[in-house]
Amino acid sequence: MLRRTILAGVTSTVIGAVALNEPLRDYAEHLWSVIRLNDKPGLPVFGTVSAATAVVPSASTTVASRTAQIMKFGFPGTANVKVRENFVLSFDRRLRVATWVFEHFNRESLKKADGVDRSACTFFEDPDEHPYFRPTLQDYLNSGFDRGHMAAAANHRSNQKHMQDTFTLLNVAPQVGKGFNRDSWERLERYVRQLSRTYKEIYTCTGPLFLPRREGDGKLYVKYQVIGKNHVAVPTHFFKIVVGEGTDGFLDMEVFVMPNQVLDDSISLNAYYSTPEAVERASGLLFFSSMSKDRLRCVNGVRTK
Amino acid sequence: MLRRTILAGVTSTVIGAVALNEPLRDYAEHLWSVIRLNDKPGLPVFGTVSAATAVVPSASTTVASRTAQIMKFGFPGTANVKVRENFVLSFDRRLRVATWVFEHFNRESLKKADGVDRSACTFFEDPDEHPYFRPTLQDYLNSGFDRGHMAAAANHRSNQKHMQDTFTLLNVAPQVGKGFNRDSWERLERYVRQLSRTYKEIYTCTGPLFLPRREGDGKLYVKYQVIGKNHVAVPTHFFKIVVGEGTDGFLDMEVFVMPNQVLDDSISLNAYYSTPEAVERASGLLFFSSMSKDRLRCVNGVRTK
Repeated sequence: MLRRTILAGVTSTVIGAVALNEPLRDYAEHLWSVIRLNDKPGLPVFGTVSAATAVVPSASTTVASRTAQIMKFGFPGTANVKVRENFVLSFDRRLRVATWVFEHFNRESLKKADGVDRSACTFFEDPDEHPYFRPTLQDYLNSGFDRGHMAAAANHRSNQKHMQDTFTLLNVAPQVGKGFNRDSWERLERYVRQLSRTYKEIYTCTGPLFLPRREGDGKLYVKYQVIGKNHVAVPTHFFKIVVGEGTDGFLDMEVFVMPNQVLDDSISLNAYYSTPEAVERASGLLFFSSMSKDRLRCVNGVRTK
Repeated sequence: MLRRTILAGVTSTVIGAVALNEPLRDYAEHLWSVIRLNDKPGLPVFGTVSAATAVVPSASTTVASRTAQIMKFGFPGTANVKVRENFVLSFDRRLRVATWVFEHFNRESLKKADGVDRSACTFFEDPDEHPYFRPTLQDYLNSGFDRGHMAAAANHRSNQKHMQDTFTLLNVAPQVGKGFNRDSWERLERYVRQLSRTYKEIYTCTGPLFLPRREGDGKLYVKYQVIGKNHVAVPTHFFKIVVGEGTDGFLDMEVFVMPNQVLDDSISLNAYYSTPEAVERASGLLFFSSMSKDRLRCVNGVRTK
């Protein structure tokens, strides 16, 4: 994806992104210290492989088969999985935010249907979670954070119900509003939708990260705020992994990690590139475990073979 | 359990424990702010109920049926469950420590068998976890923390293999050594074993907590250290929930939360009492969900009806 354009910026990857901001250097250290990409044979993330075949989405599929489509390349984990008609998420009951949210779309399914209206959607407290762990509207109120969608509302505008489904607070995490959720993060979401012009199918996984940083005593600490009576965790970063499937069956992947803070909106998105492995280690998840490595052509615009 | 002796100290519960230490006051606030015990009908923790019947352990049971025994009152969650011959744990791949560890024992099974030798046991890196998430000996080396057992080795001395199994680093979390792991925490473990003199069967669930505290800006933050190249999380607290089953079928429960720090060893264990609900909310887990509420006689020495 992006290919030539982004290829130029690829060597900087995460290091490039975090060099933008002095205190973020330690995050880069985190992401890279445990990885020795050169020591590894290829991308171990694609170690477990099956010969996956393309599934063409249809408007008449059941939720179950839609789930199979969305999750085509395997579940990153199976704890507290919540299946909705057009996306699938895993909810972290301790942090009160999703662990990961999976979506699948293409040019056709992204088209806005007549009458679909975002302003008619409302955030809601989801009865499909135990009251002990269920985030509430009150938790976010006056918290200083936006209710940031993980599965973006605009990815689900072909159907009012699908869009409304994304307004569950299980699909939401506290995000810095101005300068992040409403700017660079939204720019990333828009970019991912635009990839549907290039690829036949798009699969995307989005979620929070809680990354450590080195403090004055030389030790690494994870620190994050919690908001509201239910102590909803404010992620330090968010990741988004995108897989584009070409008409000839090849797969391109892009991996983004963005800090949850005011970002300079003039910074190119490829400055936020990370590796699948770094995100897997940091999140505790294995992505696309059933994806065939043979079909993978590029990661962050760099050919894998 | 403890009954009369502890009944006197019960009203202080967690508040009592954390009042010991000025900065801990916020943990108490955390544990209590989201709970309004008086607003709730009984203990919602026992909301989902089945008429559980006693299972008598036998030396010849298979691992599968042993698991059914250990987990008699339901799994708190099913993510990354690792079943061993004499305990069951759920491993948190992001934090690199267990989410919870379940044990079951009684007076008979606690007896040390001839030849069982703790000094012959060695901590080991467990191949039953993906290398991205697997804690290593190197992670703990020179970290300043003990490799603290969740399932205590001394609970498994009837069989050398069972004891050795507890030395997997999946069953270990970084604990403050002197003043905690080797003192108050060990005192708690010993106390729980002693309960087998009073009760026919003991069920216990142990795990880490990561509790927030209020900082100078008035906001709540979770902060914890991570150690080693794999960033093993250092829990701020540990919980231990114990259920004793009497010969006449009644159940008594005790719930402990201890901060992972040097503690005054003269402090009574009942000063660390917490409620099941507080630990459930903080850990994101539901304990003993298949336990019959009707059989529950006492929580922390206080009669429930």
